[in-house]
Amino acid sequence: MTSESMSLVDRLAERAAEIESVLDTILTADVGEEEIARPANLLAAMRYGVLNGGKRMRPFLVMETAALLGADRSAAARVGAAIECLHCYSLIHDDLPAMDDDDMRRGQPTVHVAFDEATAILAGDTLLTLAFEIIASPQTQADGERRIELIYELTKASGIGGMAGGQALDLAAETTPPDEAGIIRLQAMKTGALIRYSCEAGAILAGAAASDRERLRRFGEAIGLAFQLADDLLDVTGNADAVGKATGKDAAHGKATLVGLHGEQWAQKQLSGLVQEATQLLEPFGQSAQYLKLAARFIAERDR
Amino acid sequence: MTSESMSLVDRLAERAAEIESVLDTILTADVGEEEIARPANLLAAMRYGVLNGGKRMRPFLVMETAALLGADRSAAARVGAAIECLHCYSLIHDDLPAMDDDDMRRGQPTVHVAFDEATAILAGDTLLTLAFEIIASPQTQADGERRIELIYELTKASGIGGMAGGQALDLAAETTPPDEAGIIRLQAMKTGALIRYSCEAGAILAGAAASDRERLRRFGEAIGLAFQLADDLLDVTGNADAVGKATGKDAAHGKATLVGLHGEQWAQKQLSGLVQEATQLLEPFGQSAQYLKLAARFIAERDR
Repeated sequence: MTSESMSLVDRLAERAAEIESVLDTILTADVGEEEIARPANLLAAMRYGVLNGGKRMRPFLVMETAALLGADRSAAARVGAAIECLHCYSLIHDDLPAMDDDDMRRGQPTVHVAFDEATAILAGDTLLTLAFEIIASPQTQADGERRIELIYELTKASGIGGMAGGQALDLAAETTPPDEAGIIRLQAMKTGALIRYSCEAGAILAGAAASDRERLRRFGEAIGLAFQLADDLLDVTGNADAVGKATGKDAAHGKATLVGLHGEQWAQKQLSGLVQEATQLLEPFGQSAQYLKLAARFIAERDR
Repeated sequence: MTSESMSLVDRLAERAAEIESVLDTILTADVGEEEIARPANLLAAMRYGVLNGGKRMRPFLVMETAALLGADRSAAARVGAAIECLHCYSLIHDDLPAMDDDDMRRGQPTVHVAFDEATAILAGDTLLTLAFEIIASPQTQADGERRIELIYELTKASGIGGMAGGQALDLAAETTPPDEAGIIRLQAMKTGALIRYSCEAGAILAGAAASDRERLRRFGEAIGLAFQLADDLLDVTGNADAVGKATGKDAAHGKATLVGLHGEQWAQKQLSGLVQEATQLLEPFGQSAQYLKLAARFIAERDR
C-alpha cells in the first residue's frame, strides 16, 4: 500500500507503531552515552504507563506537520515520543487518589493501582524528565537552537501556564464551578496547549517560515478545542467499555463543561465549525496535508 | 567589605540573596514573552516550597564554579535558580504521604500539609518543568548549544538514572536493606548526581576545557559523598530543632546507611579524606577557588 492510498486509520497505525518502537527502545536501553542503572521496578512502571496502546495522536500531529514542512522523520519521531512521555506523565499523576482518583485508564488498572502510589508519582516525575531528555539528546538530529526552542515551548505548554496549571484549575472547578470564560481558559491550558504544541513542533523542527508556523499553531488551537468538546460529548453520550474509562463523571461531579452549558446540539455545530476552520488553515499545503485534515475530522467525530 | 575578605558565611548569604531574588522574580512575573495566566493557588504553593530560607548550596556551587571559569554571572544565577527549583520539587514530592510522609521541612509544615496533596503534587510537577524552562529561556544568556547541554546533563542527573531513580531505591531500601554497594549507588543517585551536576554546570556554562570540566565534576562527586555522609551523621547526632526536620529516622526505619554500617568514627575519617581530595582537585585554580574549598569543608562539618 502506498502512503497516497492509505486510509487515516492505517496512517495512524503506521505512525503509532513507529512511536511505540521509539518509546520501547528509549524505555529499554540507556538513553545517555554513559552506563546508568535504572531501578527495574520504576522502569517497569514507566513502561506500563506509556506502552499501553494509546492512539498516539499527539506524536501523529508532530510527525505529520514535520513531514509537511520537510523536517527529518526520525527527529520528528523522537519529539513525538517525548510529547507522549509528557502526556502519559500527566495521565499518571491526574489519576492519583489525591487528584482525579481514577482506577482505570485505557481499559487497564491505572499505574498507582497496578504498582503503588509512590511508584506512580515517581514514574510521572521520571517520564516528565525523560521528555526533556529525549529532545535535548544529541540523538535528536536537529541543531541546538531548534532543540532548545522545542524544549522552551514545551515547558510553557506543559507547566503552570499550560497543562499542569489547567489541571490545577480543573481540580478547583469541582468545588467552584467556573463561568464560560473560566471553562475555556481551563481547557485551553489543560488539553489545548499540548495539542497546539504538537502541531507547532513540526514547524519548529523544520525551521519553517513564521507564517507557516503560525498557521500550524492556529490549526493546533482549532483541533485542541475540537478534541476537548468531543471529549466532553463522549462523557455524556459514550459508554465506559468503548471509551476505556469511566463516563458520566462530569455530570456526577457537577463539573462545568461547555456541553453542559450549551447542550449537545450546540457542541456538534461548534465541532463542525472547528473542523472547517482547521481544514481551511491547511489549504495552502494542498494534498500533502490530507492526513492532517482527516485527523481534524477524526478528532471531532471519534467515539472513544 | 570586599569579596576577597568575606567569610564563607557572608559569601553564602550574598549568593543566596541573589538566588532568592532571581527565584522571586521568576515566581512572580511571567517567564515567557506571552501573557500567561498562572493559577494563583498553585503559584503560591510553588513559592512556599521554594522561597523558604534554604541554604541554596547547589546554586552557590554553580555560581562559584561559573565565576572560577569566567562564565556570565547572571546566566549562572539563572542556572542556579533552575537547580534550586528542581531540588525543591524533589523535596516536595519526597515529603508526600505516599513517599517519606514528612510533615515538617526546614522548620515549616511541608507543602502538602500547608496546602493539600493534589496541590503539592502539581507544585512539584510545575517546579520541575520550570527548572527546564528557566535554562531554555532566551533570558539565560548563553548560546543554544550550551543551554541544551546544560539541560541534557540536568535531565540525566535528575531522572530515573539520577535523583528520582535514587528516591525509588531509597523507598525500596526500607523493606529490603541494600548492601554497601547498594547504599553507595543509592546515595550517588539520590543526592550525589545533582550536587555533581551543580559543579559541572558552571564549567558547561563557561565553555571550559574538558580537563577543567572533569576536575569540577570530580570535585562535585567528592563533596556529594561528603554531603550525604554528613547528612547521615546528622540523623544520628543532630537534634530536630537545629536540623529543621525530624532526626533519628534512619535508625527508626531500619534504613541502611554507611554510618550505620561502619560507625561514626569511620564516617568522620571518610569526611576528612573527602574534604582533602576536594581541596586538592581545586589546587590548579589557586586563590580564586577559596570559597569552593571552604564550602567543601562546610558541607562536611555542618551541624544542620
